[in-house]
This record gives sequence, structure tokens and C-alpha cells, in this order.
Amino acid sequence: MLPPLNNIPTKTDLEETFSALSGMVTKTPVITSMTLDSLTGAKVFLKAENFQKVGAFKYRGGCSAILRLTDEQKKNGVAAHSSGNHAQAVALAARNMGVKSYIVMPKDAPLVKKDATRGYGAKIIECESTIEARETTLAEVVRKTGATEIHPYNYYPVIAGQATASMELMDEVSDLDFILAPIGGGGLISGTCLAAKYFSPKTKVIGAEPTEVNEALLSLKKGELVKNKSLNTLADGLRTNIGEKNFEIVKNEIHDILEVSEKEMMDAMKWVWERMKIIIEPSSAVPVAALLKYDKMFNGKRVGIIITGGNVELKEIVSKL
Amino acid sequence: MLPPLNNIPTKTDLEETFSALSGMVTKTPVITSMTLDSLTGAKVFLKAENFQKVGAFKYRGGCSAILRLTDEQKKNGVAAHSSGNHAQAVALAARNMGVKSYIVMPKDAPLVKKDATRGYGAKIIECESTIEARETTLAEVVRKTGATEIHPYNYYPVIAGQATASMELMDEVSDLDFILAPIGGGGLISGTCLAAKYFSPKTKVIGAEPTEVNEALLSLKKGELVKNKSLNTLADGLRTNIGEKNFEIVKNEIHDILEVSEKEMMDAMKWVWERMKIIIEPSSAVPVAALLKYDKMFNGKRVGIIITGGNVELKEIVSKL
Repeated sequence: MLPPLNNIPTKTDLEETFSALSGMVTKTPVITSMTLDSLTGAKVFLKAENFQKVGAFKYRGGCSAILRLTDEQKKNGVAAHSSGNHAQAVALAARNMGVKSYIVMPKDAPLVKKDATRGYGAKIIECESTIEARETTLAEVVRKTGATEIHPYNYYPVIAGQATASMELMDEVSDLDFILAPIGGGGLISGTCLAAKYFSPKTKVIGAEPTEVNEALLSLKKGELVKNKSLNTLADGLRTNIGEKNFEIVKNEIHDILEVSEKEMMDAMKWVWERMKIIIEPSSAVPVAALLKYDKMFNGKRVGIIITGGNVELKEIVSKL
Repeated sequence: MLPPLNNIPTKTDLEETFSALSGMVTKTPVITSMTLDSLTGAKVFLKAENFQKVGAFKYRGGCSAILRLTDEQKKNGVAAHSSGNHAQAVALAARNMGVKSYIVMPKDAPLVKKDATRGYGAKIIECESTIEARETTLAEVVRKTGATEIHPYNYYPVIAGQATASMELMDEVSDLDFILAPIGGGGLISGTCLAAKYFSPKTKVIGAEPTEVNEALLSLKKGELVKNKSLNTLADGLRTNIGEKNFEIVKNEIHDILEVSEKEMMDAMKWVWERMKIIIEPSSAVPVAALLKYDKMFNGKRVGIIITGGNVELKEIVSKL
């Protein structure tokens, strides 16, 4: 049980969230690689959220959100639309706290994701695959059930939850010069910015984006929200636009945003699979690719990277390598 | 520097090897999975040697062998024939101790393996791909250079090195009822048998083999060495016959050998990749498949599994799933 969170999370908010989540989320390992260090000249620490429950950091945000519901809200359950990691995160977090969950998924979402989400106890509501259909269906579900909507990123309780990944990293590894994380909707990067600001002000936060979906970089340059022209990237976790609440934090706190190509991302993913023997999803490979591409910037530095998750369709993704 | 080892390693031999290797080999993590535990009813501990240097436990045997060379032998270097993990293990262990290495590899070995072995400083000598050509070429190299041959398994120093994987596991996890490991040439399983016998006599060692190369099981039943009829398995690390010195240990010390089909092995490999987010090679999946297949046997028990390595050709292996 945590107090409601309707503004940018404060230091105390993050401390309370961290403490409430410990024991509930997996304290994921920090992985190092001598080969990666000698390739880059940096000392690199990968925070392996691919080993998190549901295989992605998103579980943290799900827990933080559900912990903030009132008893009244808990009775009516939670709702979200997602065809990815957020669906499973909300479903499992809800089940673990005895709360019902309703997940709106496009009809054509992979069967394996529907099954996994249903396996975590969610009620799946199918809809057409347009974003409009998903939003309309979700609104309908909320109206009918009284469930609380859990937005995947544009939502302070979720931002506070995602912040705990880098809080754990900084707890274990001191004096980081940089933390790198990918930018999709911005839940993770905005949480990371706040965590660094409050708990390690010398640590610079750098976002990483595939060029195909570089709206956060464009928004940062312009000083206002710009939308992606297309969502044509293999990094399925990043096929969205940065949220308003997220951008509000990011524009003030972020040090820089680096861009990588699809090929740089996929090469970095392959390198991590082959050399480090861990499965990371394309989104997670984006900051690794940025580290390799801009290695001079990180030479001699201590660099943390949030490895966001490891949920992939093996055959499909390997065919793209 | 360790004393020579010409007989079945004693408790003291293993203790000396363990102590000499610590700091030289990676102390690999022990990984657990609530999902795997609830699937099997066991408490399972995976010793993740896929995170070992060169990506496989074989590095332990390489170090143990080279540490036992006299100064005279060191001057002339070491030699081995291998197209797999043993090649890289010997090459890197040799380089790290300032010793030359000569590796005989079949002409048609994957370029990536030749490059990796050469990258570790070995001199590669190519030959035809028959076992006869490999042995003749190796004998020729040894005659010309005076190098010491390091056999991948039928060699006591290597057996002592491989034993350190389960010694580390038992150091970290107490009271194991079982340790499971795959059987190829038998270096690992014979070392595991000795480690359990000396340091945790209540722990039963179980070998696991694909049915296609089940010569160790057949040999155990018959009480004498039987050879494989074919080597038709996707578990490239197990495409060989158990060695004499290995069988001598195994026949007295092993509790049982379990068989799994190619499909059971590949399904288990896929499960570990997808659910645990670590890359393991087909050989490593053999004991995992045995655990899943014979789960009743392990119900309520504490089970260690040696995950032997993670070196795979991604596209090739994923196309077989």
C-alpha cells in the first residue's frame, strides 16, 4: 500500500516505492563482461531486467501502480491495453496482489502473448488492431467494470516503479558516470532521470533510440513533443511516442539522446547473445549499440545500461540477423 | 604449478586443483527459476558454465592440464585436436600462462571457430575432417614441436579441472540430492562423480545422454566400453565415445544415466532460452530435458545441473527448433 502519486515523483516517493517493491520484484543481477570493457574502454554494468518477472522491467511499474490503488479501486480491478510486456506485467502484478485485471489486446497479437497474459490470470478482451479500437475498447471496459486504467508510461506511479531498476543498479554499483536506457514511451527513461537526480547527481542519463523512431530526440531538440512519422523498427518495445508526463521530466533532466540504426541495434543484440550468452530483446540492444557506436564518449567511464527485457519470438528475430 | 597427475585424482588432488584454478576461471553464477521449480516439484540449481571463459566448462580442464606441465614442457607448448570448445579452452588457457598452443582443426570447421581459436593465440593446423586425419596430424605436430598433447577428456588433469565446476556448485549450494550432467567423452561426468564422492557423498550423480549417442548407458549396462553406432545428434559437444579413464570412474561412482530424445533436448533448450533468457547449447539441454522427463524422480529434491556451455551457431540451431 502506497500513497497516491499525482505529480512528478519526489525523492521520498521513489524511496517509498523502492522499499515497497523489494521482495516483490526480482533483484536482477548486474552483469559485466571483460570483452565488452576492452572493446569500449569503459567499465560497463548491465542491469539484467531480462531476468525480471515476466521477462522485463515493466513488472516494476505494474507493481508500483497496483500498490497505489485504494481498497475500493482494488475491488474493481485494473485495465490496460497492450500487446507486449506491459500486458503481462499488469496481469501478474495484479494477480500477486489479489486484484482482477482486464487486458485489451488486438485480435492479431501473437497467441503466445495472449496465452502468457491469460496464464497470469488476466481476462483478455480482443479488439481490432488499430490504436483507436484499442483505446475505445479499453474505455468501454473501464466504463463497464469500474477498473482503474494503468497506462504503460504516461503515469506517475509507473514512472516511480521503473525508477527502481536504476536505484537497484546504483545501490550495487557506485560512482556511475553514465546510465544508458532506451526510450520508447519514456516510462523507464523518465524514472531513470529522477533516480539519478535524487540519488547520484553526478551520473548523467543518456537515452538511446533507433533512428526509425527518434521522436524523443526530435522533441528534445525542438523543446516540444514531436510524433514519430512511422513506427518501422524491429524494437517492438519502442514502437510508440514519448508521453507528455515523461517528456516533461526528460527535457529537464536528460544529458543526451543517441541514435542508432536498425543494423547497429541488431548487430549489438547478436553480439550480446553470442558473447554474453543472455537473451535480450531488440529494444535492450539499442543502448548497447549506442555504447559501441559512441565508444570514445565512454572511454575510461563507468557506464550502467538498463537491459530492459528478453521477450522475443526466437525464429522471427533470428531470421532478421 | 601443480604436481603431475597419473592416476585417478584423489581428494587432495581435487582440492589442489580447485585452489589453483580459483581466480583463473570465472566463478560462474548459480541460477534458479521459480517456474522450473514449480514445473518439476524440485528445487533446481543451474551452474551456468555458459558464462565461463570461452563460453564452456572446458576452460577448467585446459587450465588444470597446463598448470601441471613442467617448465621444460611449457617451453614446447601444448597441442590438441578439436573443432569445438576444447580448442578454444586450450588456446586461451595456454595464452594466459604464456604457453604456445597448436590446434589441429578439420578444414571444414566453421570459420567463426577457427577465428576464435586463432584470436586466443593458437597456431591452427588444418587437416581433412576424418578422425584418422585429425589424429595423424596431431601426432605429427607433437613429433615436430615436442608439444604436450592435451586430450579433451581421457586425461586425469582434465578430469580434475572439470571436477571444479561441481565443487564450486556444492560450495555455494549445500545438501544437493542430485547433480545432473551430460555425458560426451566423460571428462565432466567423471570429474563430477569424484567431486561428489569426496565432498558430498550423499549427492547422487546422474548422467544424461541423447538416445542417438547413448554409448555410456550401454557401456554401463554391459560393464565394458561399447561404441556409438552413429554420432547423429544435434548436441555437437556429445558426438564422441566415453573415454577409458572416464568410464573407469563412472562405472563405479555414477548413480544412473538417463536418456532423452533429440526432440526432448531441443524443446528443453528452447524452454531455457525463452523462459530463463540464457543461451545454452544443445548438450547443456540434455540434463534439463532429463529433469523434465523424469520429474517424479526429482520431486521434492534439491537438484544441481551443470549447464556446460553456450556456444551455438544461432541461425543454424534456431532453424532446428
